[in-house]
Amino acid sequence: MNEPLYDFRSDNVGGASPEILEAIVAANTGTAAPYGDDDFTRRMNERFTTLFEHPVQVFPLSSGTGSNSVALSALANPYGAIYCHETAHINVYECGAPEFFTGAKLVGLPGRDFKLEPAALDDALALAGRGNPTRVQPFALNITQPTDFGTLYSIEEVAALCAVAHRHGLRVHMDGARFANAVAALGCSPADLTWRCGVDVLSLGATKNGAINAEAVVVFDPQLAREIPYRMKRGGQVLSKARFVSAQLERYVADDRWLERARRANAHATALAGALTALPGVSLVAPVEINMLFLRVPGTVVAELDRGPFRYYKLGRDVRFVCRHDQEPAGQEALVRCISEAVLPSR
Amino acid sequence: MNEPLYDFRSDNVGGASPEILEAIVAANTGTAAPYGDDDFTRRMNERFTTLFEHPVQVFPLSSGTGSNSVALSALANPYGAIYCHETAHINVYECGAPEFFTGAKLVGLPGRDFKLEPAALDDALALAGRGNPTRVQPFALNITQPTDFGTLYSIEEVAALCAVAHRHGLRVHMDGARFANAVAALGCSPADLTWRCGVDVLSLGATKNGAINAEAVVVFDPQLAREIPYRMKRGGQVLSKARFVSAQLERYVADDRWLERARRANAHATALAGALTALPGVSLVAPVEINMLFLRVPGTVVAELDRGPFRYYKLGRDVRFVCRHDQEPAGQEALVRCISEAVLPSR
Amino acid sequence: MNEPLYDFRSDNVGGASPEILEAIVAANTGTAAPYGDDDFTRRMNERFTTLFEHPVQVFPLSSGTGSNSVALSALANPYGAIYCHETAHINVYECGAPEFFTGAKLVGLPGRDFKLEPAALDDALALAGRGNPTRVQPFALNITQPTDFGTLYSIEEVAALCAVAHRHGLRVHMDGARFANAVAALGCSPADLTWRCGVDVLSLGATKNGAINAEAVVVFDPQLAREIPYRMKRGGQVLSKARFVSAQLERYVADDRWLERARRANAHATALAGALTALPGVSLVAPVEINMLFLRVPGTVVAELDRGPFRYYKLGRDVRFVCRHDQEPAGQEALVRCISEAVLPSR
Amino acid sequence: MNEPLYDFRSDNVGGASPEILEAIVAANTGTAAPYGDDDFTRRMNERFTTLFEHPVQVFPLSSGTGSNSVALSALANPYGAIYCHETAHINVYECGAPEFFTGAKLVGLPGRDFKLEPAALDDALALAGRGNPTRVQPFALNITQPTDFGTLYSIEEVAALCAVAHRHGLRVHMDGARFANAVAALGCSPADLTWRCGVDVLSLGATKNGAINAEAVVVFDPQLAREIPYRMKRGGQVLSKARFVSAQLERYVADDRWLERARRANAHATALAGALTALPGVSLVAPVEINMLFLRVPGTVVAELDRGPFRYYKLGRDVRFVCRHDQEPAGQEALVRCISEAVLPSR
Repeated sequence: MNEPLYDFRSDNVGGASPEILEAIVAANTGTAAPYGDDDFTRRMNERFTTLFEHPVQVFPLSSGTGSNSVALSALANPYGAIYCHETAHINVYECGAPEFFTGAKLVGLPGRDFKLEPAALDDALALAGRGNPTRVQPFALNITQPTDFGTLYSIEEVAALCAVAHRHGLRVHMDGARFANAVAALGCSPADLTWRCGVDVLSLGATKNGAINAEAVVVFDPQLAREIPYRMKRGGQVLSKARFVSAQLERYVADDRWLERARRANAHATALAGALTALPGVSLVAPVEINMLFLRVPGTVVAELDRGPFRYYKLGRDVRFVCRHDQEPAGQEALVRCISEAVLPSR
Repeated sequence: MNEPLYDFRSDNVGGASPEILEAIVAANTGTAAPYGDDDFTRRMNERFTTLFEHPVQVFPLSSGTGSNSVALSALANPYGAIYCHETAHINVYECGAPEFFTGAKLVGLPGRDFKLEPAALDDALALAGRGNPTRVQPFALNITQPTDFGTLYSIEEVAALCAVAHRHGLRVHMDGARFANAVAALGCSPADLTWRCGVDVLSLGATKNGAINAEAVVVFDPQLAREIPYRMKRGGQVLSKARFVSAQLERYVADDRWLERARRANAHATALAGALTALPGVSLVAPVEINMLFLRVPGTVVAELDRGPFRYYKLGRDVRFVCRHDQEPAGQEALVRCISEAVLPSR
Repeated sequence: MNEPLYDFRSDNVGGASPEILEAIVAANTGTAAPYGDDDFTRRMNERFTTLFEHPVQVFPLSSGTGSNSVALSALANPYGAIYCHETAHINVYECGAPEFFTGAKLVGLPGRDFKLEPAALDDALALAGRGNPTRVQPFALNITQPTDFGTLYSIEEVAALCAVAHRHGLRVHMDGARFANAVAALGCSPADLTWRCGVDVLSLGATKNGAINAEAVVVFDPQLAREIPYRMKRGGQVLSKARFVSAQLERYVADDRWLERARRANAHATALAGALTALPGVSLVAPVEINMLFLRVPGTVVAELDRGPFRYYKLGRDVRFVCRHDQEPAGQEALVRCISEAVLPSR
Repeated sequence: MNEPLYDFRSDNVGGASPEILEAIVAANTGTAAPYGDDDFTRRMNERFTTLFEHPVQVFPLSSGTGSNSVALSALANPYGAIYCHETAHINVYECGAPEFFTGAKLVGLPGRDFKLEPAALDDALALAGRGNPTRVQPFALNITQPTDFGTLYSIEEVAALCAVAHRHGLRVHMDGARFANAVAALGCSPADLTWRCGVDVLSLGATKNGAINAEAVVVFDPQLAREIPYRMKRGGQVLSKARFVSAQLERYVADDRWLERARRANAHATALAGALTALPGVSLVAPVEINMLFLRVPGTVVAELDRGPFRYYKLGRDVRFVCRHDQEPAGQEALVRCISEAVLPSR
């Protein structure tokens, strides 16, 4: 394998954390009922109930797209509308899966820093044509926390959005593919960021933070959970040997390592941002609040980066770097050096 | 955990084989591109090309239902019909997932020993109303090999069904959730049982035979593969860290252990069938050709079984026992003893 | 136009009744709100409420397939099952529209005279796997009254089926594409045949009995009606100038002509059956209870028919004749003569 | 009926033109094969071939939403994207029908005067992620001509959009619910506005201009027509007695009356706009190019209008007036007077 030395493409290019692998190996004992009707899944559910300080029903699955789509299918009818930011992951990067699972239409709204704004949401819902059969009917709000551009909603912002949504009769889904990074950055409890704010269903991702294809649909309202097993099966989201995902999820939140990793990854991005934005011609596309940087850079920088031992993504003329908790310091140094040399006049 | 001692519920209640766990651990090194664009997946694809003696495109995923549904979505249009046995897994036990992914209608045909019959298929297709817009149009044939009742199509039977299907313009999908058991029982090569017979797409399951949520869509015709990545993403079937499933699949077929396990499981069922069918009042619902037994037994047997340390499934008044490669001899002995005592007059 | 002289293909090959055309012309006055929010539609709804002796909500549309599909979409969830006879129109001749609109799976049951049987339905529902997420969940029962083979359920049979359905938690849809023929033949009231028996939603067709693309979804339970406007719009079933369909429907049931026409058509079929079944080699595929005959005839008859001035449909080796209220006596006589000559030894 | 005296709500509140009613009555003779396999439909198809100076395949149906959705379903795959203006009718006022029929996602773009702009479309398509399975793939472009805000694309603008679309591999659908108004206003031929510009499929509406629930899917490329009968049936869009819609469509374009009506309606709007925009505080939301006006008016005007004998629609704080060909001059005068009195200081 000749993978590049320094990989900033995404946090899902990394591997599994040691305790996650241990959990998989430990789960490999005896027999267990398939499809999530097993003790590993039950223990995981208890663990999440403790973590969230609230009775929850947790459904383990392997795909983040599946997790979002299943969660939304419990909230929106086929003639429904799901409101989200126009740059939301569900609106741009899931190839229509949320629409497929729900039958509903995604309505993307603009908003500063890639975040929804309560007043704009309120306006949009007021004009949505509630009761008019020619219009899709508002059913759900999606909050991507953190956003795909690495920005964060404060707890107050989440609460304000949920309040608007609930006032208009919508339920709220949080896409927490990087939930750990959000909790770590905000220094809050998982409960504070979710049901206490008014979130009805959370898609909590563990894959980008040390797990192996382990995602969870966390349902705070038992009424919403009733249909989910059928929706999951119909969507090919039920795992035959669910215990191996549930065991990961249980271990994932069993201690503080998930948050420590997230904090470390976030800190790497902050440091990188500090070093890079000091350079002439380099500017941030969005505030750096978790482990991702989006930079606007001169074309010379891109050319230079492409010559180096780096892997990263381009979005139009911008570049994205994602930091992992286990990223080598040498990689960050090399990246800063490379960009510096491209923008600074040679001495 | 107080799981029962002797578990005959299904082959997916078992754990992972040692080499599979090793493969997962070994894959946990360095970074790898997400979504299947990685070297583990490429090597797996090469391995399958060798195994099948034919260039194949292999898509790794976590769910057998997802695998069947994705494969079928490459074959059938939304106004299409997919022909299958009326007891086919896709028709009974996937909560409508194949219809959801394809938009097509499943047309279940009767047939001896839970198998499709070429002449009956031919008749059905002749009466299907090709070209009549009020009728769903035949697009695909599903062959479940082995069947959900543990019976097997011979290579000649598969070839005859494929010939009928192709003559009517249908493509053929094989649901090989227990493909290993079929290959082991028939003593043929994977190629003999698939593309050489006319199978266009195979869903090969590894989960029931030692892997952890590892399934493969194996496409024999490159034209059919083009849409699959989009169909998969839209269905939430793309894995973020696909390498961990691809590594399992690569190791799964890297040597003969997958077939040895299947042979062992099959042999257990044969032995069990021999012992049980000798008993009065006990009869087979279907020939025992792989690792599953369906028995018709007196009510007293069911009552007795439910008192014992057994886990198994009931289907109406019948009972099902599935044998795993690693099943304890004591379990089989206990099972035979229990049923014997229920049906034989006490001395 | 050189249409054949004697047309037995279907009742929808006929034209419009005079009063229906008058109603269309009369509706062409002034302006009216679109999409069914008009006085013609309101008056039609009142008329149906009177006719059915029960408050109903009636949705006018143009397509019988649309009517069935919309009605069923109010009853079944996407992971649901809709039970019907295996030969039901919705299962065979609507190109998957009911599945498309509902997302549910149609489960076809066998049954004598092309009719569902309460005991068999009860058995099927008992084995349907209620609560098991791998199985589609029973939501609705479809009763096609009359059946596509021209047989009729008695009121008692409808009531018995509804009772079974309701006991298992299913709602009941009646496909009444030829509702007039059923009411005429049974000599009952529309109420007796529907909500008094337990029918929840009726698709009432007027097109085959003198109207022009005029169908009605008749909802007996107001709760079920709430979603229908959205389901209709999403399915392209809302009519821009709905008044022209509502005016037809209102006039259709405003006096007894709809039933007189149906009685006449039924009587034609009875007479034809009497004359034809007396002939050697000619047998009925199904009892003739409305305006349709299905005959099994020798191949010589088919050959002879194809030489004559007839239009009719073949189903495999059987032939179908549908009688219209305005069919010329000469056509019937010619048909009897033609078949007689084919089967009787020439003198 | 106490409908208001002056109805500016929409053009579909009007009735049928005399020749259309005559065509319906004339079609009521003899029998005709159902589902569009009749001579009326064949003659209509020939008439459209003449009108468009190009061999076309025309599918008659009753719903404009159905027409758009069926047409698009021939162009876009389930993982596809359909590009349109963000205010396009298909994107806002069809309750998700286009998504339902296609499975694709609508991507709404901004653009001056409610029209798509070629350069912006080109940019959007360049960034659409062709070949990236996480992104829906561009399949079709929708041009709503005229737009829902009464603006018109010039022939050159349509051609430029089609050129961009085709260069990126998209097919083009034109939503011509008010096609007559566009042809009348531009003074061009139907051919000039459609296939000569690069339009692949046209939804031509007759309902808003004198017909009764009569719409046509006009396909310029025979390849695209092959699947349409199945897509229509599955969508409940096939008419049992299609002859009564085909006869309308045939008569609709048989002489110049359809364009005369459209010209008259357009002229009414132009006159109205001239009178109203001279008033202080009254401004046009969009140029008046067909038979619709969107005005921004002071709140006092709305209050005054609501007291008068008018029917019209409000969109947020704007008001919409649609002119019909047969609108009474008194209505227009009353409207101008009412608004004048509201905005002008009383003498």
